Amino acid sequence: MTHYQVKSGSKLLLKDFDPDETGHYKNTDQEKDKAKAETAQLIARLDGLQERLYANATRSLLIVLQGMDTSGKDGTIRHVMSGVNPQGCKVVAFKVPSQEELSHDFLWRVHREAPPKGYIGIFNRSHYEDVLVTRVHGLVSEKVTKQRFNQIKEFEELLYENGTGILKFFLHISKDEQKKRLEARVADPEKRWKWDSGDLEERKFWDDYMKAFEDVISATSTKCAPWYVVPANRKWYRNLVVADQVVGALDGMNLKTPPAPEGVDFSKLKIV
Amino acid sequence: MTHYQVKSGSKLLLKDFDPDETGHYKNTDQEKDKAKAETAQLIARLDGLQERLYANATRSLLIVLQGMDTSGKDGTIRHVMSGVNPQGCKVVAFKVPSQEELSHDFLWRVHREAPPKGYIGIFNRSHYEDVLVTRVHGLVSEKVTKQRFNQIKEFEELLYENGTGILKFFLHISKDEQKKRLEARVADPEKRWKWDSGDLEERKFWDDYMKAFEDVISATSTKCAPWYVVPANRKWYRNLVVADQVVGALDGMNLKTPPAPEGVDFSKLKIV
Repeated sequence: MTHYQVKSGSKLLLKDFDPDETGHYKNTDQEKDKAKAETAQLIARLDGLQERLYANATRSLLIVLQGMDTSGKDGTIRHVMSGVNPQGCKVVAFKVPSQEELSHDFLWRVHREAPPKGYIGIFNRSHYEDVLVTRVHGLVSEKVTKQRFNQIKEFEELLYENGTGILKFFLHISKDEQKKRLEARVADPEKRWKWDSGDLEERKFWDDYMKAFEDVISATSTKCAPWYVVPANRKWYRNLVVADQVVGALDGMNLKTPPAPEGVDFSKLKIV
Repeated sequence: MTHYQVKSGSKLLLKDFDPDETGHYKNTDQEKDKAKAETAQLIARLDGLQERLYANATRSLLIVLQGMDTSGKDGTIRHVMSGVNPQGCKVVAFKVPSQEELSHDFLWRVHREAPPKGYIGIFNRSHYEDVLVTRVHGLVSEKVTKQRFNQIKEFEELLYENGTGILKFFLHISKDEQKKRLEARVADPEKRWKWDSGDLEERKFWDDYMKAFEDVISATSTKCAPWYVVPANRKWYRNLVVADQVVGALDGMNLKTPPAPEGVDFSKLKIV
């Protein structure tokens, strides 16, 4: 599924990516069940891979989730990462910055939350908000935005060079799909607590957001920290694509059972 | 399973608690499978309960795990808490304190890690180390230890009065069982990386540790932060006892679907 990866140096055009896409699965109940079974198998492998990551404590994995409201950031974490041992998995949901956070550069609070060696870190929203929402609403100049693109690249390179694998997912839904999901929240009294009138305000800037996503993804999809444009109108396919990449990344680290401590003669050890 | 709870004000004698106990299950393969099925059902309920805790963000749950080396603190987290959405679950493994941590009172680093509203927080070891390992090795005076018992009670009361439910588990294994588990690490090359010669040193102080556990559990098992002595020689029964208490605690919070935001007329909302 590497064709969802945005190649370093290429210019992303979101219109070339169909949010309804479901790969080699058709959008039928039967095919959906097959895809879900494939996802379940991948998730089952995650458990062992993460255990090894934790045991070795030499590498870490950072997963960045971005997307419009209702694009499924929470749902992806819930479906793909439940089953992972929570000891060794750290999810950070970045909210509106506090006064203290605002008194530092935009990467300060992000750096603090970088996953330690042995951990999978998941950013539910991230430093990318600082070149998306701020840009769409004209809160930062174009000059500063372009500087930040560069600062982000260098920050991610720092993490990568120090042992952190990085995967960045843009959960790509269509404007129509967002409409359906918001309508579902309105219609179902059990879902109304999720309603945030702010989402409706941001929806008015849909095209500006798509443009901002295209720009930042084009500028920051690098070999060490690639972006993936995940077709996310179908939740089951979105989960499969993300699970596949996460398993692939951990698998690619090729971690073995950690070595036994040095200087211990196990043949002579006696426990009394 | 409330009979594992140490009543507030009572004097715990560990010899009254059999680490081999398996409740109303016999220690046969068939009964073990039944217990595992019961545990699986409890864990399946955890998912929904935790989602509600997170959605409401009015309460939190703190789980403290203590026990001798190899007693199964990591295993309990892995088996009982995998399946919980990691967004909303925060595990903290307290290690030897850093210089910065040592330059504060012993509860300083612990308070920072208290679970926020909406979260399940799990302490893998905790502030209790500061009245166990330190006491056994004579690093703090008896006077300071007794002060700390009181400070711990007041600290936990603070958390409780501000919405945090607290469950404290002492994973109770026998000295013989620890021997078996350490021997297994020595025998299996795949497990040798877990070997820590320090564990063997601490084992020499087994009786002192049991006495220290009895004292601190007796002194700090309160109505708002009860201790449970979990029979932990059989891993499958240990998991069942812990899962049962965790589900019971969340269930007892009696959380409903959060209310819809105020001031929104859902009948008139139109999404364009």
